[in-house]
Amino acid sequence: MRVVNTKGKKFRVPDATILRLPLYLDKLILLQQAGVKEVSSRQLATSLDIKASQLRHDFHYFGGFSKPGRPYQVDKLVPALEEIIGVDVPVPMIIVGAGHLGQGLANYRNFERLGFPLRGIFDVDPKLVGLEIRGVPIRPLSEMTAFVKEHGIKVGVLTVPVNVAQDVANQMVAAGVVGIWNFTPTDIRTPPQVIVRNERLAVGLMCLSFKTKRIGQTEELRGD
Amino acid sequence: MRVVNTKGKKFRVPDATILRLPLYLDKLILLQQAGVKEVSSRQLATSLDIKASQLRHDFHYFGGFSKPGRPYQVDKLVPALEEIIGVDVPVPMIIVGAGHLGQGLANYRNFERLGFPLRGIFDVDPKLVGLEIRGVPIRPLSEMTAFVKEHGIKVGVLTVPVNVAQDVANQMVAAGVVGIWNFTPTDIRTPPQVIVRNERLAVGLMCLSFKTKRIGQTEELRGD
Repeated sequence: MRVVNTKGKKFRVPDATILRLPLYLDKLILLQQAGVKEVSSRQLATSLDIKASQLRHDFHYFGGFSKPGRPYQVDKLVPALEEIIGVDVPVPMIIVGAGHLGQGLANYRNFERLGFPLRGIFDVDPKLVGLEIRGVPIRPLSEMTAFVKEHGIKVGVLTVPVNVAQDVANQMVAAGVVGIWNFTPTDIRTPPQVIVRNERLAVGLMCLSFKTKRIGQTEELRGD
Repeated sequence: MRVVNTKGKKFRVPDATILRLPLYLDKLILLQQAGVKEVSSRQLATSLDIKASQLRHDFHYFGGFSKPGRPYQVDKLVPALEEIIGVDVPVPMIIVGAGHLGQGLANYRNFERLGFPLRGIFDVDPKLVGLEIRGVPIRPLSEMTAFVKEHGIKVGVLTVPVNVAQDVANQMVAAGVVGIWNFTPTDIRTPPQVIVRNERLAVGLMCLSFKTKRIGQTEELRGD
């Protein structure tokens, strides 16, 4: 992906680097909240299970953020990464599917902090339509297309049942959504210009599975 | 981490490999549901944005799963990975924090399929205590410790407010929980034998942020 640096120079940044920037920022915000002022590349990288050389290589695309051998200033690095990631640019968002997961996400106030103000929530269930979550009403799904066009919605969270996921995603894309945060446990097909971020809850649980279920075995191994 | 293969041989598998196995299985289950019978290492790897050589290297720890140059049989690979990951071993789980996100997760039926039957839900809110989600009652948090001990609960999902996350995690660990699936936007400290899987919703949204907010810029770049 090509981006422009602060001096107006165009350059290409690997997707893998781009996908790590949010991890760095997430950790740095935690450090900032804990009152940490400085962090070395080694400390930051170790806390994320990556190599320090990898982190420095990633940061190098954006000017490095510190002089060689000097720690990063947390209070400077956080806003710098926020700007690169685009947190400072508000992009209006909707949630499609107001079941428990959709409602849980609608209640997640951090979205505003990350530059995604929640503008609308949509569902087909007449028992949900008309309810409000943090002041945002749940509207009928049939109104989504017009709403997306009218309000210039760019990003949609997909939390509908899996059997209608593709159909609803098609409607979102046709209306003008360019980024879909997909919480359904299925792949959705979109035109190449649409970005899909799959959030696979099952993968997280399976990671925990391997380790928690093998703890007994590992201990047995150690004991023999 | 050391594991035992089907021939009883002990061997060490890198954590990075272990963390990729659920990604493979998640994708293979989608392929299986779509009726796909065979998949090459290249097809499977490409769909996950990793290199085919990396995937073959990961699988090699477990015997490779196919002869060189031959595709994987989806219907054989799925149960093989399920067994390695431990999906076939039921481990009882609780959810602590029955707000919208906790309720959303409690409604997520895939947990049972992945070997984590939901046994209990806990909250401090008297308006929530006594309600049931899929037949599982919400109990007062004060009963959690006794419940974990009595039912041999090994895994807990943490969906409490961030300001009490560490304190509740401490209670879970003291009661006997060895794996915590942390949805709170903070780091929690645990003894080394406890596995914590952090689910950072903000990271997913920030990944979407970079790409959707830069689309206009990228198009401008292409146009000049």
